[in-house]
Amino acid sequence: MLPIITAFENSPDRGAGLARDMRVRWALEEVGRPYDVRLVSFKEMQEPAHLALHPFGQIPTYEEGDLALFETGSIVLHLARHHAGLLPEDANARARAITWMFAALDTVEPPILDRETTRLFEGDRSWGPERLRLTEARIRPRLSQLSAHLGDAVWLDGAFSAGDLMMVSVLLRLRHSSPMLNDVPNLAAYVARGEARPAYKRAFAAQLAVFTGKASRG
Amino acid sequence: MLPIITAFENSPDRGAGLARDMRVRWALEEVGRPYDVRLVSFKEMQEPAHLALHPFGQIPTYEEGDLALFETGSIVLHLARHHAGLLPEDANARARAITWMFAALDTVEPPILDRETTRLFEGDRSWGPERLRLTEARIRPRLSQLSAHLGDAVWLDGAFSAGDLMMVSVLLRLRHSSPMLNDVPNLAAYVARGEARPAYKRAFAAQLAVFTGKASRG
Repeated sequence: MLPIITAFENSPDRGAGLARDMRVRWALEEVGRPYDVRLVSFKEMQEPAHLALHPFGQIPTYEEGDLALFETGSIVLHLARHHAGLLPEDANARARAITWMFAALDTVEPPILDRETTRLFEGDRSWGPERLRLTEARIRPRLSQLSAHLGDAVWLDGAFSAGDLMMVSVLLRLRHSSPMLNDVPNLAAYVARGEARPAYKRAFAAQLAVFTGKASRG
Repeated sequence: MLPIITAFENSPDRGAGLARDMRVRWALEEVGRPYDVRLVSFKEMQEPAHLALHPFGQIPTYEEGDLALFETGSIVLHLARHHAGLLPEDANARARAITWMFAALDTVEPPILDRETTRLFEGDRSWGPERLRLTEARIRPRLSQLSAHLGDAVWLDGAFSAGDLMMVSVLLRLRHSSPMLNDVPNLAAYVARGEARPAYKRAFAAQLAVFTGKASRG
């Protein structure tokens, strides 16, 4: 029995890789775990069957035998803890890699999501353009701090980990709609290294195929 | 050697329990682990010694022997994984409790933080009042969904866990500045149950004592 994840039947980003199932697909590819996908419509996401899996009516979810999980961070951490490839063996290094997962989701992504929310849902409000600049002023210090930490290292803390997977994913969201990342060359190169990983490429192709119609509905 | 956490020398909330060291203090109290606190000023938080512990210049941090962690979620998870009291023994139940930690931080807290940011930093902008209502319209569905999941259960998934610790902490942030939580009685009662825990009370008293001057600077 393969694990089953859920993904958008019609991804709002048209397969650009920003939907959160991409992060789970990437983790599954990194640990070499085949999986099945069940596509869900926006309507289905709010129906009882899906809400039983995900109380907030979102994607992705993860089902594996009698285990059902939601929240991208939790699913990626679960995969990382039960398969080799996404967390170091050493206990302290492992705790630090998990720290970077939280740093990506809870320190770096919030101002980036705030910018996205303003751009997508408040663009037609009187305050749209001014607030967009405000959110960018909040993103910039985070990028500088992250850049200072990374320096000329390849990954955030030793070998590639679930922390890098999450941080690259978060920075990709920014790059999708803003040139800001180009102002921070070592971070831009870090993201490019993430995208160059074969596991990332396989995951990206799989989620894009849903949009282009090459994947059948699960 | 006791573990050492960092906390604000002068907490912006004047000891109301919203600074993120509160979440770590609560976890330490739940698992019965004594700890030391090093208070840091806003200036010190941006200096190299603190940035070496926390690349984003925030609190809390956690030092234990040769392990140094940052990010509240990561520290609480580390404590929960290495001490009894915050995660169930059963592997699936454990993964679900961790899922609720991520749900608190990444699904429920973001719109609440967005409201806080608007309230605290954009209140004097022309859009302040209107945007505050907009953020509240984004919080309400999250509360309804969480309320529907909780139903008449005591905690989110069986016994009290690190997931509840984080969710109660997130909801307390909302209650501090909005009466919205009162509209959802089972969530209001859930938060009250969290606050009634002896470990919560000890943690709250300890962080308040920093502000009232009863704790000495570490």
